Amino acid sequence: MAEPERIAGEDGLIERYLAPLAARFPGAFGLKDDCASLTPEPGYDFVLKTDAVAEGVHFLARDSAADIAWKALAVNVSDLAAKGACPLAYLMSIAFPEAPTHSWMKEFAAGLRAAQDHFGMDLAGGDTDRRKGVPLSVTIMAIGSVPSGRMVRRGTAQPGDVLFVTGTLGDAALGLRLRHDAFAFPSEAAKVLDAGERDWLEQRYLRPEPRTVLHDALLAHAGAAMDISDGLLKDLDRLCRASGVSAEVRAGDLPVSGPGAKVFAAAPDLWALAMTGGDDYELLVSVPEDRAAAFQATAAAVCQVTAVGRIDKGSGVRVRDATGAELKISGTGYDHFSP
Amino acid sequence: MAEPERIAGEDGLIERYLAPLAARFPGAFGLKDDCASLTPEPGYDFVLKTDAVAEGVHFLARDSAADIAWKALAVNVSDLAAKGACPLAYLMSIAFPEAPTHSWMKEFAAGLRAAQDHFGMDLAGGDTDRRKGVPLSVTIMAIGSVPSGRMVRRGTAQPGDVLFVTGTLGDAALGLRLRHDAFAFPSEAAKVLDAGERDWLEQRYLRPEPRTVLHDALLAHAGAAMDISDGLLKDLDRLCRASGVSAEVRAGDLPVSGPGAKVFAAAPDLWALAMTGGDDYELLVSVPEDRAAAFQATAAAVCQVTAVGRIDKGSGVRVRDATGAELKISGTGYDHFSP
Repeated sequence: MAEPERIAGEDGLIERYLAPLAARFPGAFGLKDDCASLTPEPGYDFVLKTDAVAEGVHFLARDSAADIAWKALAVNVSDLAAKGACPLAYLMSIAFPEAPTHSWMKEFAAGLRAAQDHFGMDLAGGDTDRRKGVPLSVTIMAIGSVPSGRMVRRGTAQPGDVLFVTGTLGDAALGLRLRHDAFAFPSEAAKVLDAGERDWLEQRYLRPEPRTVLHDALLAHAGAAMDISDGLLKDLDRLCRASGVSAEVRAGDLPVSGPGAKVFAAAPDLWALAMTGGDDYELLVSVPEDRAAAFQATAAAVCQVTAVGRIDKGSGVRVRDATGAELKISGTGYDHFSP
Repeated sequence: MAEPERIAGEDGLIERYLAPLAARFPGAFGLKDDCASLTPEPGYDFVLKTDAVAEGVHFLARDSAADIAWKALAVNVSDLAAKGACPLAYLMSIAFPEAPTHSWMKEFAAGLRAAQDHFGMDLAGGDTDRRKGVPLSVTIMAIGSVPSGRMVRRGTAQPGDVLFVTGTLGDAALGLRLRHDAFAFPSEAAKVLDAGERDWLEQRYLRPEPRTVLHDALLAHAGAAMDISDGLLKDLDRLCRASGVSAEVRAGDLPVSGPGAKVFAAAPDLWALAMTGGDDYELLVSVPEDRAAAFQATAAAVCQVTAVGRIDKGSGVRVRDATGAELKISGTGYDHFSP
């Protein structure tokens, strides 16, 4: 079989595969200028986030180019969503280990197209590089907009707030294990899942769905919020530190999916993943007690939300079981620097 | 000798070394939130640029951390400068091959501090990652502001425009060769330079000085502009393609520095670097003929500017010598077309 043709030059790659993703955004100038231009709408602030995904850390080489593209954008949009911001545009810096093939680039652009259309944003600019032998990485800067001064903060949780999470927890961690660590996934747990359930868990890992739909509920009622990318306990600890408060989580109230519940029943050791597993990209929302009912009503119209605990004075995060006994959870989430 | 202590956690690294760089910028929230917030000033657009530098491609491991930091920011600011934008803030995504040492990180932060203070901007947010064994890379997204609708474009050069360049050309390419390719630098050329001149050329490579000072002159008079990062001829060709025009460059008028002139006299083969050498981060400015004198007067008050050619109809870039004969420039040298 002939070696597939690799793309010869950066300019051609941009023109053929990336410029179409910027066609609707006037400030992208068709990706033919050095910079992008963004015109503010009166009464709005811009909200900015950058996050990178790299082969071997956030995805594997055998993941499809479309999935890699989706995830690269989604992990950034998730942060915008947590801040109550509407996605507008993004810049993208790609480092290729070698010139990509046309078929890979076509699939990557299709994944980006699907993601940007789904999130309601456009490519505004970027940069491509070749770094010989270095694993592929995609760094995105996402730009959203929020009514002036209304960005939902991380450091503004107050004692007495009710803690909510969206969706279900631990699915992406299970999906990752099914996909990449099949040997680490207990076979007795895998056996309880049918093919559709396995696929659903893998998709939760591969194609996270940022909770942009929560926008109105967050702006109306949230005291503080952030997304859960490194596991509930680790991210909640960050929210508590930033706010100078403590938190208590009721383990029995944590929302798990149908497939997740099946796995946890068959392999109880995995259950901690609902608290420590990364990549769910659900939201953690701290809501003043007197607005909790209103938040839940508004939010429930657009996605699953569950009250899982409370904010208190002091510091630290405690997890309690149904009897009120404190649970010790080991491994509190993913840290890029821990060995 | 004991192994220097490596930084244990991402949160500590951010708090100790990066948060101080964000202290003045309210929308950075002390780097303790998920996103940065940027409040537009009425009547201004934001101008956005992302560019990455990586070890082995844009710098070598033995370059100082302070120089790497300066360059990572400067290459982005140079694009803002070319657009007539004032630097405001930046986001930064760093991928470390292993946890950095405190001394490396301290020096890196000092280099960033020097650069951001020099350019008048602040760190607003970012992301750090560890990618085991992968060379260090620093991706920056720079944000500037420009009066609404006034961003100086790349694709708006017109036939009849006068072409200007700032500063002197080829210095960074000589500095790179002195620093990294000492064996490729002809010894007869190196001998004509004293230590101060060698150092000056190396600094031109290591610490580019984006031409933000040209801001007023560009907004008042420029028809089109871009920065020269990949060599005059390559970047001018891009400007011509984007504008649908051709250009003619008078080789004899190209500005070279004192040390550059000494080297080119001793090693004439190197002279083409004034046209093909990258990393100068000077600006290429296309100015309508009737504003050329005014541009030159305004610009000359803040930096060296030199008229080096003209824009014409058609396509392509031609270089002529003092007799009007066309020069053919190849990668490392040049030869005359037969007259």
